[in-house]
Amino acid sequence: MITPVLLCGGSGTRLWPLSRQSYPKQFARIIGGESLFQASARRFTGAGFANPVIITGDDFRFIVTEQLDACGISPACIMIEPEGRNTAPAALAAALFVAAHDPKALILLVPSDHSVADAELFRDAVTHGIVAAAKGQIVTFGITPTRPETGYGWLEAGAETHPGVFRLERFIEKPDRAQAETLFRDTRHLWNAGVFLARAATLIDAFRTHAPEIFHAVEPCLDGAHPDLRFTRIASEPWAKVPENSIDYAVMEKARNVSVVRFSGHWSDLGGWETVWQESPRDEAGNAQTGKATALNCENTLLRSESGEVELVGIGLKNVVAVAMRDAVMVADLSETQSVRQAVQTLRERGAAQAAQLPVDHRPWGWFETLVLEERFQVKRIHVTPGAALSLQSHMHRSEHWIIVAGTARVTVDGAEKLLTENQSVYIPVGAVHRIENPGKVPVVLIEVQTGAYLGEDDIVRHEDLYARQA
Amino acid sequence: MITPVLLCGGSGTRLWPLSRQSYPKQFARIIGGESLFQASARRFTGAGFANPVIITGDDFRFIVTEQLDACGISPACIMIEPEGRNTAPAALAAALFVAAHDPKALILLVPSDHSVADAELFRDAVTHGIVAAAKGQIVTFGITPTRPETGYGWLEAGAETHPGVFRLERFIEKPDRAQAETLFRDTRHLWNAGVFLARAATLIDAFRTHAPEIFHAVEPCLDGAHPDLRFTRIASEPWAKVPENSIDYAVMEKARNVSVVRFSGHWSDLGGWETVWQESPRDEAGNAQTGKATALNCENTLLRSESGEVELVGIGLKNVVAVAMRDAVMVADLSETQSVRQAVQTLRERGAAQAAQLPVDHRPWGWFETLVLEERFQVKRIHVTPGAALSLQSHMHRSEHWIIVAGTARVTVDGAEKLLTENQSVYIPVGAVHRIENPGKVPVVLIEVQTGAYLGEDDIVRHEDLYARQA
Repeated sequence: MITPVLLCGGSGTRLWPLSRQSYPKQFARIIGGESLFQASARRFTGAGFANPVIITGDDFRFIVTEQLDACGISPACIMIEPEGRNTAPAALAAALFVAAHDPKALILLVPSDHSVADAELFRDAVTHGIVAAAKGQIVTFGITPTRPETGYGWLEAGAETHPGVFRLERFIEKPDRAQAETLFRDTRHLWNAGVFLARAATLIDAFRTHAPEIFHAVEPCLDGAHPDLRFTRIASEPWAKVPENSIDYAVMEKARNVSVVRFSGHWSDLGGWETVWQESPRDEAGNAQTGKATALNCENTLLRSESGEVELVGIGLKNVVAVAMRDAVMVADLSETQSVRQAVQTLRERGAAQAAQLPVDHRPWGWFETLVLEERFQVKRIHVTPGAALSLQSHMHRSEHWIIVAGTARVTVDGAEKLLTENQSVYIPVGAVHRIENPGKVPVVLIEVQTGAYLGEDDIVRHEDLYARQA
Repeated sequence: MITPVLLCGGSGTRLWPLSRQSYPKQFARIIGGESLFQASARRFTGAGFANPVIITGDDFRFIVTEQLDACGISPACIMIEPEGRNTAPAALAAALFVAAHDPKALILLVPSDHSVADAELFRDAVTHGIVAAAKGQIVTFGITPTRPETGYGWLEAGAETHPGVFRLERFIEKPDRAQAETLFRDTRHLWNAGVFLARAATLIDAFRTHAPEIFHAVEPCLDGAHPDLRFTRIASEPWAKVPENSIDYAVMEKARNVSVVRFSGHWSDLGGWETVWQESPRDEAGNAQTGKATALNCENTLLRSESGEVELVGIGLKNVVAVAMRDAVMVADLSETQSVRQAVQTLRERGAAQAAQLPVDHRPWGWFETLVLEERFQVKRIHVTPGAALSLQSHMHRSEHWIIVAGTARVTVDGAEKLLTENQSVYIPVGAVHRIENPGKVPVVLIEVQTGAYLGEDDIVRHEDLYARQA
C-alpha cells in the first residue's frame, strides 16, 4: 500500500485572476471539470493506494474538505502548516506522521497543481518504482521531454538498476536555452516532476543526514501537533523556527540513494497562461475558448470567461490570452504571461482586493459572495451546505436582513428559534445573538442585506462555533 | 436666436459593449464626464440659442430626460419618432415643428454622437453662417481635415459668398484610399460633419422640392402628433409609411442653395474603438486607460474598465483595445475594431442578452440593476429619484421583499401606506397591489429580492402609472 502525500500549501499568482492568494491554482478548475487538487487526489486512489495525507495552509483547509467531499475521497489526515515553509518541511512532516504508524510505509510525495492526462499510465510508473523504494531508494519520476523547456528542472538518468528504474545521476537546475537544447538531444535527460516514492523511514533518514537543521526543527512540531475538527494542526511555536527550503535543494540533490522512473505520458506543470493555452483543446486556428467566450478572426488565443454572467469577445487577436471574471479581467500577449506576477504586485500596491481575494469566500459551512458593497450597505448571497451551521454570532455595527431563497433554514435570534423556508425573511438588529443552520437535505441559499456604518468581516463576536473559530 | 435640433434616435453597435441597443453611443460617457448627447446639447446653449428640440426613439425617452435634467438643460420639445427612419424624416419633422411657431426661425440640425473639443470655436463657426442662412441658404459645416480619412463623407468648398461662407460645390461619398489622398492635398476639401443651419422654411422648401415623397409622408405625422407627459409623440400610423433616407441623400446633394462654413477645431465622429483610442489622452507609449485599468509593458492600447467593480489588466499588448464591463468584455486588435458589429451579431444569434441590453435598466422613475438572476429568485438594486414613483402594480407569480438601504420611501401595499427608511423592510405577497414612491430629497435605494416560478419583467399589472405606461 502506498500513502499519497499531497502538497497543497502553495499560493502562486501566475494564473491570476483565476488563481488568487485566497484560492490558489491547485483549487481552480483549469482543465476539465475538476480542480488540479481533486484530479491529483483522484489519480492516486484505488488498488494499492491508502487514503491520502494532505498538507495545506490554514486558509485553505475548508477548500480542501469541500473539494475532497465533492469527489468522495476520505483523507487519512489533513495536516495544517501554521505557515508555508516550501516543500522540504512539509514533506518531512508528512513522513513523520506516516512513520508514527508504520516506518516502513511507502509514501508518494506529489505536488497537487500539475496536470497528467493519463492517470493509469502514471500509476503504472509508480508501481515500477515500488521494488526499488522498498529496498531503500528514493524514487523520483522523470517526464520524457517533448521540447527543450527552460522553465523546468531536469534529471539525468544513469544505469538501469531494476526493471524500468535507473540510477539518478544528477539534478539539473532550470537550464538556459542552449543548455536546454543540448539536454533535449540526449535521451538520458528528463523533466523533474517533483514526485517522490520512498519508505517513510528512508525519507526521514535522508533529512536526518542531509538536512539536520530541518529535521531537528520539524520533529518537535509533530510532537506538538493537535487535532482540530477534521484537521491535524502542526504546532505553530516550533514551526516558526523551521527553515524554508525545497525538498530538491534540502535533500534530493545531496542523497546518493535516488533513482528515477521514466514517465512518457503527457504531463504539464501548468506554470502560466501560455502553458494553459498549450494544454487546452484548440481549433485549427489555435484558438481555445472556455465558458461564454467568442473568437472572431482570431489566431492562437486563449479566451476564458470564468463567470456565467460575463460574455467575452475577442476580435482580430493574435497570440493573446484573455481571462474574464466578474471582478477582474486579464489580457496578455502569450509571450508575456510570466509578467502576470508583476501585474498582481501592482494591484496589491494599489490596495485592490482583486490582487488576493476572489469574490467568493469559502467557509467551513459553505460559501458567500458579495453582490454589492457600498459605504453603508452590503448585499451577499450566502450558501449553507446541508448539515452545516454558521457560528452563533453578533455584530456591533450592522443590522442584517436575511431572505431565504432556497432550502429550509433554522434561524436563532436572541434565543428564539424558528424554521424559515423559501420566501421567508428575518431581521437581525445590531447586537442580537444569531445563528443560521441548515438542518435539511438541500443547500440553503439566502440573501443577506447589511446596513450600518461599518461593514467589515471583523465586526463579529463568535459566541459558539462548530468549527472552533475564534474570530 | 437659433433653435438647436438634436438628432438622437440612432443605435449603432460599433462601440459595444459600452454602447448597446438599449443605451446607444450618444448616451454613453466616452470621453470626459458627460455623455456625447449631453455635451452636444450643452454646446448649443447660451447667448443666441433657444431651448433645443430633441428627436429620439421611444426606448430612449427617459434616458433623454434623465440626462437633460442632470445637466440642467430644458428642452423646447422632445419629439418621439415611432420608429427610426434615418435622418431625413426626423429633420423634416423638427423643421415642421419649429415652423409651426415661426417659419423664419433658424434651426441648427446636429447629430448628438460627435465629439468637439472646443465648443466656443464651433459656436463661432455657427455664428458665421447666420447671415447666409437668414438669406435662404442651407449652411453646412466642413471640418478642416487632418488626415486622408476614408471613413467620412467629404465636402468641396467653392467661392466665398459671405465672409467665411463658401458656396458648396459638391458632396463627396466616402472615398477610397487613393481618392482620400487626393482630396486631402487640396484645401478646398473638408469633412462633412452632418451639421446644418437654415431657416425652418428653407429646409421645408428643400424637402418639398427635392424629396416630395418624404415631405408628403411626414406632414400628416406632425398634424397627428400628441403630447404625452414631457414628450411629443409623432403619429405612428402615418409614420409607418414614411420612407427611410438620410438628409444628405434626400435633400442636400440635390439642393443648389447650400453653403459651407469651415471649422478648423478638433472634431471626431467617434465612429469606432480605434477612433476613441485616437481621441483619448495617451501616455508616451500610446496607452490610454480609464477606470480601474492597468497597463504593463503595453504599447498603443486602450484599456477601459467601465465598472468600479472590475479590475482590468493588460500585459505586453500592442495595438489592442479592451473594454471591461460587469457583464461583457471586448478585446480587439485596433485595426479590427470595425468587426465589433459582426461580433454583436454573433452574440445576438446566440441569444445573449448582452448583445442589446445593459445590466442597468433606465426607467422614468430612476433605474434598476439585476444583481443575481437564478431560476427561482432574483435580486435587484433599485434607485428611485426624489419625487418619482413606480407604478401601482401587482404580480401573478412572484413575491417581493424590499429592504430600504438609503433614503426614505413611501410604500403602499394593498391600500396601507407607510414611510420606510434605511434598514427597514416590507414584504409584498403574490397579488398584492403595491407601489413605492420617493417623497424625499435624496435618492431611495432599495434591494428587492423576488422569489417565484416566473420572474419576467412582463409579469406586471399596472393599476396606475404617473408615466402613462400600459405594461
